[in-house]
Amino acid sequence: MSIPSLTSLPSMDDVAAVAPALAAYTAEALDADVWTRPGLSVRDRCIVTVSVLIAKAQLPGLPHYFAKALDSGVTPSELSEIITHLAFYTGWMNAYAAVAPLAASLAERGMSPMPLPATPSRLLPLDEETEARRAAMVEQNLGDVAPGVVRYTTELIFRDLWLRPDLAPRDRSLVTVCALTATAQVAQISFHLDRAMDNGLTRAEASEVFTHLAFYTGWPAVMSALPVVKDVFASRRK
Amino acid sequence: MSIPSLTSLPSMDDVAAVAPALAAYTAEALDADVWTRPGLSVRDRCIVTVSVLIAKAQLPGLPHYFAKALDSGVTPSELSEIITHLAFYTGWMNAYAAVAPLAASLAERGMSPMPLPATPSRLLPLDEETEARRAAMVEQNLGDVAPGVVRYTTELIFRDLWLRPDLAPRDRSLVTVCALTATAQVAQISFHLDRAMDNGLTRAEASEVFTHLAFYTGWPAVMSALPVVKDVFASRRK
Amino acid sequence: MSIPSLTSLPSMDDVAAVAPALAAYTAEALDADVWTRPGLSVRDRCIVTVSVLIAKAQLPGLPHYFAKALDSGVTPSELSEIITHLAFYTGWMNAYAAVAPLAASLAERGMSPMPLPATPSRLLPLDEETEARRAAMVEQNLGDVAPGVVRYTTELIFRDLWLRPDLAPRDRSLVTVCALTATAQVAQISFHLDRAMDNGLTRAEASEVFTHLAFYTGWPAVMSALPVVKDVFASRRK
Repeated sequence: MSIPSLTSLPSMDDVAAVAPALAAYTAEALDADVWTRPGLSVRDRCIVTVSVLIAKAQLPGLPHYFAKALDSGVTPSELSEIITHLAFYTGWMNAYAAVAPLAASLAERGMSPMPLPATPSRLLPLDEETEARRAAMVEQNLGDVAPGVVRYTTELIFRDLWLRPDLAPRDRSLVTVCALTATAQVAQISFHLDRAMDNGLTRAEASEVFTHLAFYTGWPAVMSALPVVKDVFASRRK
Repeated sequence: MSIPSLTSLPSMDDVAAVAPALAAYTAEALDADVWTRPGLSVRDRCIVTVSVLIAKAQLPGLPHYFAKALDSGVTPSELSEIITHLAFYTGWMNAYAAVAPLAASLAERGMSPMPLPATPSRLLPLDEETEARRAAMVEQNLGDVAPGVVRYTTELIFRDLWLRPDLAPRDRSLVTVCALTATAQVAQISFHLDRAMDNGLTRAEASEVFTHLAFYTGWPAVMSALPVVKDVFASRRK
Repeated sequence: MSIPSLTSLPSMDDVAAVAPALAAYTAEALDADVWTRPGLSVRDRCIVTVSVLIAKAQLPGLPHYFAKALDSGVTPSELSEIITHLAFYTGWMNAYAAVAPLAASLAERGMSPMPLPATPSRLLPLDEETEARRAAMVEQNLGDVAPGVVRYTTELIFRDLWLRPDLAPRDRSLVTVCALTATAQVAQISFHLDRAMDNGLTRAEASEVFTHLAFYTGWPAVMSALPVVKDVFASRRK
């Protein structure tokens, strides 16, 4: 048994030594079954998993899953953007905590930190009408209560962060939905799952996202989210 | 003052040096009063505490409370099963994070990691009728939305995990209710507290569980749970 | 790139190396804009930030923000009381985890751990009528369900903790509201925000608290809290 570490996962031998059932479920159910299910690519499953770990600040797993993500087609720039995105959706310190593990994972593969510009030369086009509708609704509800939140929501999040080109809107939505589920923010899932599907996440993929999430956020968070998922699916069928 | 450590609790001297009131509340209210209250055994209080720490991924406290649990009649096999159970109820990485602290606690007492079979030779008997009713309800509500979740809930959780013989169903229920409270999953408490009482947790014990939880998960999580507890108690009185 | 650390924040160079956009948002939006907004003092913003980090057990940021708090007029005694207060409002282990970082921050500035008495010679005066009303309501609702919780709520929290003189009631309320938002305990915000405003937190300050919180707890937790904030503001206008 190696010395307890807070910066990496236990080996499967270490897990098997004290929790053999957990090791067996990991090998048989999680690795050989869940991760290989059709309906959601391994690349997307890596994005789901990494998003959960950052949202829950579960740092020991990050090196392993950053490495798996890089091996499964998630680019360094995308991981960089996922961290930045989650600063806004789970809190600044969650993003900061992911910086060193990502740096280490990149260094291990001889990838130098990418020269991503902080300010991209071109933002994605904005759907002005949808954004105007969202902004008007938030202004009406909360403009009087928290003008600062309303201003930053528009300026920083919807007119800047979501338009950064190095992470596709569909992937930003995926990251957001996973973070909301992992942090028990059920009230916000409806808006963001609907937006995810507008951004191209299919119904079959969404269903698999929650199946994958059950293992990484625990069953209760998913069981609390699924009634909302059901309503979003139903509202889009009409 | 010792060097800040993320793998163990501060000593009482360290606590007293910067937060003397916290040290006093710990000695007088928590250690001398709460832990000695009748109505819930020290063994059960250890299970409650360990479940909260794993659910909240609060690793520095685990060595201390694993040791206290082992000294209070919780067996190594039970702790192993608690970790495995919480993989499903709080997320896989929460369980992984508890592996090294448990290994260290066992090693310290010269207990070798137990030769628990990953697959027990015999599962506990299943109440087929209750399980069929549960499965039918979930299938009807969610079978169309997340068939993967529905399948694993039946196959892995209710027809396997809950039937593993090395942790009594009453104790699995106790672990589950604590995890739900600690992670603010209030919507799931009703089902699991009712099940806990079906599994033998008395009303007086349940009441003490939430008293103990107030200190380890904080008051707000318990105050949010208690209206649900009240409803469950009332529904069982009839 | 320095070795990943779990006990301190990454440097801005480390952040910029893998997440240049996060570094840019930090410099331009968070440091140069949010922290300098009128309506909430830097001292209060430090209390908000420290409360979030303790509530979410995000230890790597604590040394930095304890230091900033000490430099911005928060006294060692106040930080000591904040930690103790959060033992009750977020769980005992969250408070314990903050002990070593506070000790380190004090030592770095050559401040010796303060000789704060665990039991102050004089408690703040109690508004007996308001407290009697609160106690009666809780007793009626929950006295039968969890007599232990009801007893400790009165004896330890409202007749002791809140009356300790080294942290003003207005600041205890601020700490409490931040902890509730950070831990998604929306159901408890109404009571405590109302109490915060009774204790002297202005409407403009409360609005800025949630603006500041958006960055440190993430947008979703704040968007879930704001409807409650709106209702509290409306109820006090009449």
